[in-house]
Amino acid sequence: MNKPLKYAVFGAGSWATAIVKMLCENLDEVGWYMRSVYTKEHLLREYHNPNYLSSVEFHIDQLKLSNNINEIANYADVLIFAIPSAFIHAELEKLNIDISNKIVVSAVKGILPESGLLLGEHFHEAYKVPYNNIAVIAGPCHAEEVALERLSYLTISCSDAKKAQTIANSLSSDYIKTKISDDIIGVEYAVMLKNIYAIAAGIAHGLGYGDNFQSVLMSNSIREMKRFIKKMHKMKRNINNSAYLGDLLVTGYSVFSRNRMFGNMIGKGYTVKSAQMEMSMVAEGYYATKSAQLLNEKNKKKTRLPIINAVYEILYEGKDPKKTFKKLTEKLD
Amino acid sequence: MNKPLKYAVFGAGSWATAIVKMLCENLDEVGWYMRSVYTKEHLLREYHNPNYLSSVEFHIDQLKLSNNINEIANYADVLIFAIPSAFIHAELEKLNIDISNKIVVSAVKGILPESGLLLGEHFHEAYKVPYNNIAVIAGPCHAEEVALERLSYLTISCSDAKKAQTIANSLSSDYIKTKISDDIIGVEYAVMLKNIYAIAAGIAHGLGYGDNFQSVLMSNSIREMKRFIKKMHKMKRNINNSAYLGDLLVTGYSVFSRNRMFGNMIGKGYTVKSAQMEMSMVAEGYYATKSAQLLNEKNKKKTRLPIINAVYEILYEGKDPKKTFKKLTEKLD
Repeated sequence: MNKPLKYAVFGAGSWATAIVKMLCENLDEVGWYMRSVYTKEHLLREYHNPNYLSSVEFHIDQLKLSNNINEIANYADVLIFAIPSAFIHAELEKLNIDISNKIVVSAVKGILPESGLLLGEHFHEAYKVPYNNIAVIAGPCHAEEVALERLSYLTISCSDAKKAQTIANSLSSDYIKTKISDDIIGVEYAVMLKNIYAIAAGIAHGLGYGDNFQSVLMSNSIREMKRFIKKMHKMKRNINNSAYLGDLLVTGYSVFSRNRMFGNMIGKGYTVKSAQMEMSMVAEGYYATKSAQLLNEKNKKKTRLPIINAVYEILYEGKDPKKTFKKLTEKLD
Repeated sequence: MNKPLKYAVFGAGSWATAIVKMLCENLDEVGWYMRSVYTKEHLLREYHNPNYLSSVEFHIDQLKLSNNINEIANYADVLIFAIPSAFIHAELEKLNIDISNKIVVSAVKGILPESGLLLGEHFHEAYKVPYNNIAVIAGPCHAEEVALERLSYLTISCSDAKKAQTIANSLSSDYIKTKISDDIIGVEYAVMLKNIYAIAAGIAHGLGYGDNFQSVLMSNSIREMKRFIKKMHKMKRNINNSAYLGDLLVTGYSVFSRNRMFGNMIGKGYTVKSAQMEMSMVAEGYYATKSAQLLNEKNKKKTRLPIINAVYEILYEGKDPKKTFKKLTEKLD
């Protein structure tokens, strides 16, 4: 391909907005699909997203905005999906053009709750996108710090290293360093699982556990994550790389983390419903917990996942957080 | 041995005080050596350490206090040293009784700056304590949280598993869970190295790097630690266990960490001297940085240690933190 690739971002949350900002550092034009007519009009008039990362000002002539998902999908060669996994199913129902020759990038932090599929798997099955055209963007990267242009590192995974590098280049800048990887499946699972561990960290904090315990929880979480991912997709990987451990830590320890905040409320005694109503954002880990639990239950030989099990029992079986965590502490080391 | 073992703690800092508290949960009597006559008198009169963890009240009839190191060493079968490594050399010069048949436990967070030896190695060389009588206590465990009786996990390492378990039992309680390990050398190095990484985390924070970068720094730190320890003592170990990764995280992320605080001041522009004067506690990582750097320089084939190198250059070669960290960011991924 001699013509430079056209990129588009799907979604208008904080992570989508951050990715558009990164791309705008390098590209003349970036396609951006969002559902909300109001958000689009606001961007055109005020040059920033009214709801997320509103400190980020865009050059409006760099953006190709649309509320029509097919128009933007048709426009771009590289489609980056950053729609929360709970909404992506509904959004994709509208996507009905042929995208089988495009590069599809998952920046979705979770798996599709309806099918239990990773986004990449879904695009392969539903849209016949070949696997070497599927990529994943992983952190550790809070969107809020991208808005502040604080140094952040991204990992772009694709089985085709050249494509991974092309996407990486389009995202790199003074404040974004990138590396590439070929572990699409492992990275996508890691991105999903870390949100569950962040909820666990939040619950522990809400229950009054201290820093000593948090570090034991994180040390057990990364070992649990390694077991889970190995079971799903065995290959040589260093689980302590930034895309796995780094991403777990930024989510588990950061005050920006919505999943940790959600867990904290649960630990403090909120019901799942009241915690969800209190927060204006969706905690991805809520859905991820169910998906991970179900995926493991499908395995003939189950993996030992005491932390995920505990979070599942609290969120989906109404178990008491205090008692459940007391039991969990016996299983950690 | 049928008689129950007698335990003694050497040192009166926060970690020593925390260990005495843990032992007092299980033992009728605990020996406690401290240099300061004032601290001893204060303990006898007011039942708490005047300088560290002063909220912890002791039953004074449980304590055998002395300012004479030989008296306490003579009294006990298990000698637990929790003296900051910068002072231990001076203290040990007074220790001149035969302790070759006793169990010596290192709770020192660093290595002896004068010799570059781990405490266990020093006791082996200078006091002829056999290696299977040498143990190490490692966290992740901030003394301050022990004072608050917040759930914490300890790892006790000894090549003799039975002795490790005996010591572990004497420290276990409602709020202290223990596990044992046979990797004395690896754990002792980890305990030392984590303080260097905590200084690095502090410097980064002081320089204005955010959470995204911190998580990348920690992800690189644990990989660097793994390389370092493997070089010093090759054996099968899971670097993500609590004694290594957990301890790194609690130190790198916690507000209680003196090393992180020290680094933060350096990052904010304090000189090493002014930062040290500002703090009333010794940041162990300062000495550890030099020891680690020198140990690696002695190796024929050096290990890649970009983080330790950067901290060394800043603390010992007067290099500018901002420029040095800018260069460091290029070496991380």
